[in-house]
Amino acid sequence: MAAVSAFIAVDWGTTNRRAWRIEDGRAVDVMRDATGILAVPSDGFADAAAEIRAKLGDLPMLMAGMVGSNRGWIDAGYVPCPATLDDLAARLAPAGEDAWIVPGVRFIAGSRGDVMRGEEVQLLGAVAGGLAPGDATMCQPGTHCKWARIEGGTLTRFATAMTGELFALLRDHALIGAAMKGDVADGPAFRQGVARSGEGDLTAALFGVRASSVLALRDDADAAAYVSGLLIGADCRAQVQPGATVHLLADPALGTLYTTAIEAVGGATVPVDSHAAFLAGIIRIRELQS
Amino acid sequence: MAAVSAFIAVDWGTTNRRAWRIEDGRAVDVMRDATGILAVPSDGFADAAAEIRAKLGDLPMLMAGMVGSNRGWIDAGYVPCPATLDDLAARLAPAGEDAWIVPGVRFIAGSRGDVMRGEEVQLLGAVAGGLAPGDATMCQPGTHCKWARIEGGTLTRFATAMTGELFALLRDHALIGAAMKGDVADGPAFRQGVARSGEGDLTAALFGVRASSVLALRDDADAAAYVSGLLIGADCRAQVQPGATVHLLADPALGTLYTTAIEAVGGATVPVDSHAAFLAGIIRIRELQS
Repeated sequence: MAAVSAFIAVDWGTTNRRAWRIEDGRAVDVMRDATGILAVPSDGFADAAAEIRAKLGDLPMLMAGMVGSNRGWIDAGYVPCPATLDDLAARLAPAGEDAWIVPGVRFIAGSRGDVMRGEEVQLLGAVAGGLAPGDATMCQPGTHCKWARIEGGTLTRFATAMTGELFALLRDHALIGAAMKGDVADGPAFRQGVARSGEGDLTAALFGVRASSVLALRDDADAAAYVSGLLIGADCRAQVQPGATVHLLADPALGTLYTTAIEAVGGATVPVDSHAAFLAGIIRIRELQS
Repeated sequence: MAAVSAFIAVDWGTTNRRAWRIEDGRAVDVMRDATGILAVPSDGFADAAAEIRAKLGDLPMLMAGMVGSNRGWIDAGYVPCPATLDDLAARLAPAGEDAWIVPGVRFIAGSRGDVMRGEEVQLLGAVAGGLAPGDATMCQPGTHCKWARIEGGTLTRFATAMTGELFALLRDHALIGAAMKGDVADGPAFRQGVARSGEGDLTAALFGVRASSVLALRDDADAAAYVSGLLIGADCRAQVQPGATVHLLADPALGTLYTTAIEAVGGATVPVDSHAAFLAGIIRIRELQS
């Protein structure tokens, strides 16, 4: 398929946005700022999109992420699992002139449901761009960590863990938060937390941080890393079978923590460049749209 | 042993206090107010104790609970496990004239530690008062749920789960909190949460509340009960073996929820009156002191 004509690709999230000018299937210019959807008034998205065009050119614009949520520009809805890039391209939601938003993906099994918005472009883009095989388990750590299964190049199911959000809640509002002022890094305290998570009593393990602080069994400087190990360890144990390979789309800091935890539960990781995966996905969607 | 002379027993917690005038081994008068330790300035405990004596009589006073913490009147320390009422009576901390505070109990196993302060009088008092056998698993649900093992009448080990605190954190501060405005009661939603907790992926199950709200798979009015079921279910699964009997020291509402969850994981419960257990324990400590 011939490369599509120039356009702007936007990954527009809750707190940040990143946009690229794409020419001949490659990013030739990029901008990033903190104008996530929460920084845009509900009637301000056309203006906010015009800012992007002012910097990257007056071109068609294809967006993904929370900009397509009910708090964003328009609600772009969800396509069901199993989902492909073709499914996403067939359901683009028009938002302003020469601008479209990629829908999210929903997964429903019985009474259980899950949703994603933005991650689907990375996940399916990783496969389309040759960054991951067509059969893979992928993980996107963060505030809401996504665990996805790709089979035959199709997103078949996924689960979201509120790992990062729970860490922030505990640090900022819990009794144990008073001790969680140290840095989080891979090290003995993080690995002790990962090991402790194997006992399956997360709520008791978390209170243990308070008791260990009171009894001076652990330096408070290590508490945050230990709690991170408990939460990420519990997350990985629930999702990773021994022997499994996980394709990890993460920034370096979280990538290191998840690699340590996944290896501790008997898995292995392959790093995937999440921006490259996003670009491969959104360019393919634009090709399918044209 | 002859009944001790009259004294005042005080269960003085973080947000409430309850005091009884004890004569001939029985409570003959009681007061309760919201003057927990957080409502008392650090130099105000002598005056706060005088308020109790003004209502219940100018008698020796024996206190237990957070009044013995580093935020209370004085830090009464901890006795180690295995702990008995004799150990507690031998380590009473003087606090003002004719007034003493019962120490807490600590449990340390390797790098793991736990602490309690106030619950130990109930636990050992339940046995001393014939409300529970000398070999028992006991549970005190609440903000910080205690699970204790009593062997031969001795408190040998315990674990604290931050079940209630985590529920409040999620309701008040998490993204899923927006859906958690309904009441918590035993019913289908609570039981569905208990069942779902069996899959061992608590952080993912919690995010499912958000997804189910977005996808309209569950009435938001049921979300709080479902989350309560997830947390209490996870707590009970970690602590209760199938076939086990748990002696439950709880108020009626939490007692019902824990009984449902414990039965769901194959255990059985026996209710124990926690105030009667406290009185049995503190009276016995006073006898041992005399």
